[in-house]
Amino acid sequence: MTIIRPAFSRRMFLGGTAAASGIVTLGLPLAATSAAAAPTPSPDYGPAPGVAKLNANENPYGPSPSAIKEMYEASKLGAYYVGASVPMLKSMIAERYGISPEQVSFSAGSSGVLTYIAMAAGAKGNVLGPDLFWDTTARMGTRHGGELVRLPKNEDLSIDLDAMYDAITDDISLVQITNPNNPQGTVLDGEALRAFCKKASQKVTVLVDEAYNELTDKPEYYSVIDLVKEGYDVIVARTFSKIYGLAGMRVGYAISSPENAAMIASYGLGDYALNQAGVAAAVASYNDLGFLEMSKSKIVEAREMVAAGVKSVGLTALPSSTNFMFVNLGSLNAETFRQKMAQRNVLIRGIYGSYTNWSRVSMGRLEHVQMYIDALPAVLDEMGA
Amino acid sequence: MTIIRPAFSRRMFLGGTAAASGIVTLGLPLAATSAAAAPTPSPDYGPAPGVAKLNANENPYGPSPSAIKEMYEASKLGAYYVGASVPMLKSMIAERYGISPEQVSFSAGSSGVLTYIAMAAGAKGNVLGPDLFWDTTARMGTRHGGELVRLPKNEDLSIDLDAMYDAITDDISLVQITNPNNPQGTVLDGEALRAFCKKASQKVTVLVDEAYNELTDKPEYYSVIDLVKEGYDVIVARTFSKIYGLAGMRVGYAISSPENAAMIASYGLGDYALNQAGVAAAVASYNDLGFLEMSKSKIVEAREMVAAGVKSVGLTALPSSTNFMFVNLGSLNAETFRQKMAQRNVLIRGIYGSYTNWSRVSMGRLEHVQMYIDALPAVLDEMGA
Repeated sequence: MTIIRPAFSRRMFLGGTAAASGIVTLGLPLAATSAAAAPTPSPDYGPAPGVAKLNANENPYGPSPSAIKEMYEASKLGAYYVGASVPMLKSMIAERYGISPEQVSFSAGSSGVLTYIAMAAGAKGNVLGPDLFWDTTARMGTRHGGELVRLPKNEDLSIDLDAMYDAITDDISLVQITNPNNPQGTVLDGEALRAFCKKASQKVTVLVDEAYNELTDKPEYYSVIDLVKEGYDVIVARTFSKIYGLAGMRVGYAISSPENAAMIASYGLGDYALNQAGVAAAVASYNDLGFLEMSKSKIVEAREMVAAGVKSVGLTALPSSTNFMFVNLGSLNAETFRQKMAQRNVLIRGIYGSYTNWSRVSMGRLEHVQMYIDALPAVLDEMGA
Repeated sequence: MTIIRPAFSRRMFLGGTAAASGIVTLGLPLAATSAAAAPTPSPDYGPAPGVAKLNANENPYGPSPSAIKEMYEASKLGAYYVGASVPMLKSMIAERYGISPEQVSFSAGSSGVLTYIAMAAGAKGNVLGPDLFWDTTARMGTRHGGELVRLPKNEDLSIDLDAMYDAITDDISLVQITNPNNPQGTVLDGEALRAFCKKASQKVTVLVDEAYNELTDKPEYYSVIDLVKEGYDVIVARTFSKIYGLAGMRVGYAISSPENAAMIASYGLGDYALNQAGVAAAVASYNDLGFLEMSKSKIVEAREMVAAGVKSVGLTALPSSTNFMFVNLGSLNAETFRQKMAQRNVLIRGIYGSYTNWSRVSMGRLEHVQMYIDALPAVLDEMGA
């Protein structure tokens, strides 16, 4: 993107302050105000045309038309701090799960609540997680106390829940699981996870990040929100960033006991981290089944395309319950693969941790997924596969 | 506001999952999906008609038309995490002050960065502030370490900078000043504050919250951003919530040394706390002098109206350099005053700390400010003034 120097249509005189004195109201330096007149250009809000952005697990079919309409209405009142729309959204979420509104903690994306939970845990001990999961917030939260302790790597990239339970030593204050997991895309069996949570939560708080739950084939079965209701020390994180197609609007939340909600509130900005447009979009989208069905069916279609595409070039991918897939490159290097794809305007992820031959690709629009598939033979050929 | 139960137009069938099995895709419980069809209503995003909302220092003339237009464009791409628009905004801010972009730290409103700075300070010692200032973030930040230490109360509600310097003992790790101050509305002399900051920052980090700077008559004179440039250990917080009329869109920032920016980044979510619409609005508004001039002139007009109004009923207000005024109620109770005003659809603030007879009123639209003025005689009469 080209950054064009902001300029000003005229000098600012107000309240009798003379620009000649070197003091301009609003604090605009004279040098800037004397620049040639030119409007501030609109920045780019999304990927450039012709670029397949498959690197951030976004749902490019969003926001839903209903959300866009409500964002427009809400943005006109963007001068006011969020008000009645927040308790409304909180009530909608609470009602769906049969919990009380005070069990719902908002933040600007679920990153916020996930980070606060890790900070609280870090102040008391260490956070235990699988070898490979979406650990960004656990790493952020433990920067000022505690450590992120990881399970040993499993060759099949699964999470061994028995090993995880055995790893809950006295210095662990939080267990975190991403389900479905990221970047793997695989989902833990609901009953197995439920049994683990019941047992583990007797010892420590269990945090389950369910960002991709709505993309599985059995969302209720895979979710452990019922355990929160039953009083287990379990916290579930959810987001409007994935299937709801609102990553850029920053609305996420935790579902927990009122006590854990108070703990989360003691770190964050609470509802004031939310913006008018984001809340409006979330309210409009939450029950927009037409949009959600359409998005899910497109994502499922894209997954089938990728599975067939990688198979046709002799590769395999893990079975995905999400809007991304983890592709086994065999002996090839995932970072080189990423660079070669980027040269063809296909943006994907590079190496995760020690998984040097695994590559994550997100399900964008079908035409962009097709660009990925079309690029595969030439990229593999260049890499000497 | 009435909360209407969200309902669904039809059940959700996708991927062959049978609703009869009790498992519905997207995790919507059967009870909810079988509810009668009705659309989710739009919530209220602003104050109800006929209500004078003068309790939150918002600029009701915002967002600017240019911001509303850009929010609409950006919200259509709300499926994507914020991208190129953030470095663009950062560059615009950095350019105005002649600093480097890495000296600008964003958060969802300046509350974010203010809280992180207080957390960092709390981990090392205590935060020193005036008796009365906007202390919300200092209190939030020190909940898990450190304390907020306050200067003694001054009868004239001013900040004694000499006393503040003397109060910087070894256990103080941060001095925080809000300038102009809130709820007083008064501004510290620029040269006096600059001299204080130069001296105090030799001992501890000095944080100056300049949320209302653009509303003063000499913004450059009152700001200490120049001291950041000169290398003093000073951090300045700024926001798009006040004169820019974007309180509900959550864009604020700190200006600091690269080292302090790294410290701030170690707590927050960084740029990912921002939303597409908010950034778009900030970019569009930052140099929209027509809108900013208009807003400022309306706010100045409202201040003159309030000053004349309170004078006509025998009260006084502190001279304000902001979009709110602090009114001396003499022997009357500010909370009772607030309640009586609320009965007349005029929303203002109640008691701050031990200032039981001081009342803050924000400059809303002129017709709303007029409602406040019109209500004054009857309210005072009821209170036996």
